[in-house]
Amino acid sequence: MKGGFFQVKSPAEFVGLLQDFPVLEVETVALALAHGRVLAADAVAPHDLPLVNRSCMDGFAVSARDAFGASEANPAYLDKVGDLSIDEPVDLVLEPGQCVGIVTGGTLPLGADAVVMVEHTGDLGAGTIEIRKSSAPGDNVMLRGEDAVAGTTALPAGTVLRPQEIGLLAALGFAEIAVYCRPRCGIISTGDELVPVTETPRPGQVRDVNSHALAALINAAGGTPSLYGLIPDREEELIVAVAQAVDENDVVFISGGSSVGLRDLTQTAIQALPDSEVLAHGVAVSPGKPTILARVGAKAVWGLPGQVTSAQVVMLVFGCPFLRHVQGEPQAFSPARRRTIATRLARNLHSKPGREDYVRVRLEADQAHPVLGKSGLLRTMILADGLVCIPADSEGLEAGAVVQVWLLG
Amino acid sequence: MKGGFFQVKSPAEFVGLLQDFPVLEVETVALALAHGRVLAADAVAPHDLPLVNRSCMDGFAVSARDAFGASEANPAYLDKVGDLSIDEPVDLVLEPGQCVGIVTGGTLPLGADAVVMVEHTGDLGAGTIEIRKSSAPGDNVMLRGEDAVAGTTALPAGTVLRPQEIGLLAALGFAEIAVYCRPRCGIISTGDELVPVTETPRPGQVRDVNSHALAALINAAGGTPSLYGLIPDREEELIVAVAQAVDENDVVFISGGSSVGLRDLTQTAIQALPDSEVLAHGVAVSPGKPTILARVGAKAVWGLPGQVTSAQVVMLVFGCPFLRHVQGEPQAFSPARRRTIATRLARNLHSKPGREDYVRVRLEADQAHPVLGKSGLLRTMILADGLVCIPADSEGLEAGAVVQVWLLG
Repeated sequence: MKGGFFQVKSPAEFVGLLQDFPVLEVETVALALAHGRVLAADAVAPHDLPLVNRSCMDGFAVSARDAFGASEANPAYLDKVGDLSIDEPVDLVLEPGQCVGIVTGGTLPLGADAVVMVEHTGDLGAGTIEIRKSSAPGDNVMLRGEDAVAGTTALPAGTVLRPQEIGLLAALGFAEIAVYCRPRCGIISTGDELVPVTETPRPGQVRDVNSHALAALINAAGGTPSLYGLIPDREEELIVAVAQAVDENDVVFISGGSSVGLRDLTQTAIQALPDSEVLAHGVAVSPGKPTILARVGAKAVWGLPGQVTSAQVVMLVFGCPFLRHVQGEPQAFSPARRRTIATRLARNLHSKPGREDYVRVRLEADQAHPVLGKSGLLRTMILADGLVCIPADSEGLEAGAVVQVWLLG
Repeated sequence: MKGGFFQVKSPAEFVGLLQDFPVLEVETVALALAHGRVLAADAVAPHDLPLVNRSCMDGFAVSARDAFGASEANPAYLDKVGDLSIDEPVDLVLEPGQCVGIVTGGTLPLGADAVVMVEHTGDLGAGTIEIRKSSAPGDNVMLRGEDAVAGTTALPAGTVLRPQEIGLLAALGFAEIAVYCRPRCGIISTGDELVPVTETPRPGQVRDVNSHALAALINAAGGTPSLYGLIPDREEELIVAVAQAVDENDVVFISGGSSVGLRDLTQTAIQALPDSEVLAHGVAVSPGKPTILARVGAKAVWGLPGQVTSAQVVMLVFGCPFLRHVQGEPQAFSPARRRTIATRLARNLHSKPGREDYVRVRLEADQAHPVLGKSGLLRTMILADGLVCIPADSEGLEAGAVVQVWLLG
């Protein structure tokens, strides 16, 4: 392979390969632990929600007919027949001309179809309530089944569970729920110049940055990282480490060793494993071109660039969406999943056609300023508020152009 | 207090009260666990980063003077004096007219100040390298100290640690780091109509939604939720529960019981505790007006609306930013911390002046569509992609107006 990228894929081809990887197994977790997870099956409502017609307000339950046309100038007068307790079943039936006190969340009695807010009523004493606002059926009432109808799908499989979906599942009685597993992710760093974070590098050495930055990225994408540490740039040792990591994880990320140079060991090590296949050696993005994608059995093994900022960009563009894909998220690769902000470019950006460029930008004074400095500098990612993608068919963007900034972190 | 909001605060006043609460203690955590946390002290670089001048590319280290003006048509010819190993100290000194092979990340020898990419060179044999591109000092080189200078602040206290900051800290040798503690958050639900998620409600009852939705929101904001379950609407029991929750947590969230109606117990229970003070009873937002903020000692105790969607909105607008504030995030309440997208309103939105309205909207066809339905319905939050804030001084927004949609989840 030395000297060329025979299998450089376009970003779309690369995503296509990623989408072919199967989604992980399903597990049942307590509702409290389901936040951010993806529903593995339709959540079907076991009963109507609300279970009954419920008041949205403190006030009086009425038949809207009795309060229709009421106003400050021309109130309606109704007979108060009591106050409903919020937690007791209601056996009262409201007759024409009657009303009953009700609190927020309370069940409407038969004969009532609206609630008048207490602010629009007056207690005249001797059981008479003045209604000073007109009412229509359904006013201030949540109707039985408005949130979910018994036997229908309340949330479809593939839903990412935000706090509000957790709330709905609680309301429907799902104390536990079937979701896709989180991916266990093995992280291997290679590179004879690397030393662990705890060691002091001598000139020529650098500390292992990728293990830690990748672990944080994996965490943010819902995966569980395991660090396998630094593996020397020797084929036999790398094969053993990759075999172990594949065995113990769902996805393996190897950083370093993937540039087409003197240290092209990752591919060799992957290919030495049984039932392995290199799917892509290179993807037409910058930074991040020397990225390897392979499978061992049905598991994805990634060879990420050793250059730390390139590795981070590849993770943001492909790796993290992939981890959400294997967690069952249907639109994991959709650019719509990226949080973006539209703003203007502060200066011209040149780009080499044939590859997608991800340019680090800083947001300042409502403009996107490209972060200056060598791509490999860590501070270029620190200073970046986001990334601007320049499409593969573009030669660049002009100052003043409106761009979508993909916000980081 | 019954019958009125004597201490309704404006949103700005409410945020002012929240900002007065102290930031939590500092703890030292392993770097792997620091993602999303806030630096408690400046991270000072113990050495220059890079430690030496390093190559960004595979190629040849040169003195730029020797390659200046070189081109395809008019190459320069240099004597190759060897290939540098990436991980060995470099004791070579490059003389005029010489070059040396170098790999990405390799240390530049004395006498070299630029790197020419291998793609722009040719090996003519017999130790002669053809240089086909002009070079300037610093080309393809990360200079010593460009990422951080020894003794200076690499990341200031208050920095939220994203993956890229974790990477920089790893490069500087911080195997562990001082960050602010995560808030332990006690959650209490009140309301006699509530039953646990595991129980089947009879008419008039509903399951406890808030405990679970709040736990997910707290989690997302970096807190650690503890559920204290359902406490009956009785003063003595609520006092005991709140006292215990305050004792065991940094922040306590009580939901229910805070509407000015028949069940105004939360305030009474809080005031029964020693060294307690109700700071706000009501905040001028909708939904969420009946929110109580109190302190017990130096700890915040919240009385959230029992209505589930109101409680969620109050958490999004005030509660979650507060949890980031106590974790040391300096701009926790800044609207700039909200992820927003600018889009046009699909229809008119009316608003009552004097309060900030948070309107649930769905994004569709590049427009923000207000979610229809009673505010209390859970599905209004499920259907919402985001919230649009209508300022307190506004009577509403017109269809077609450009609005900032604050994206949820």
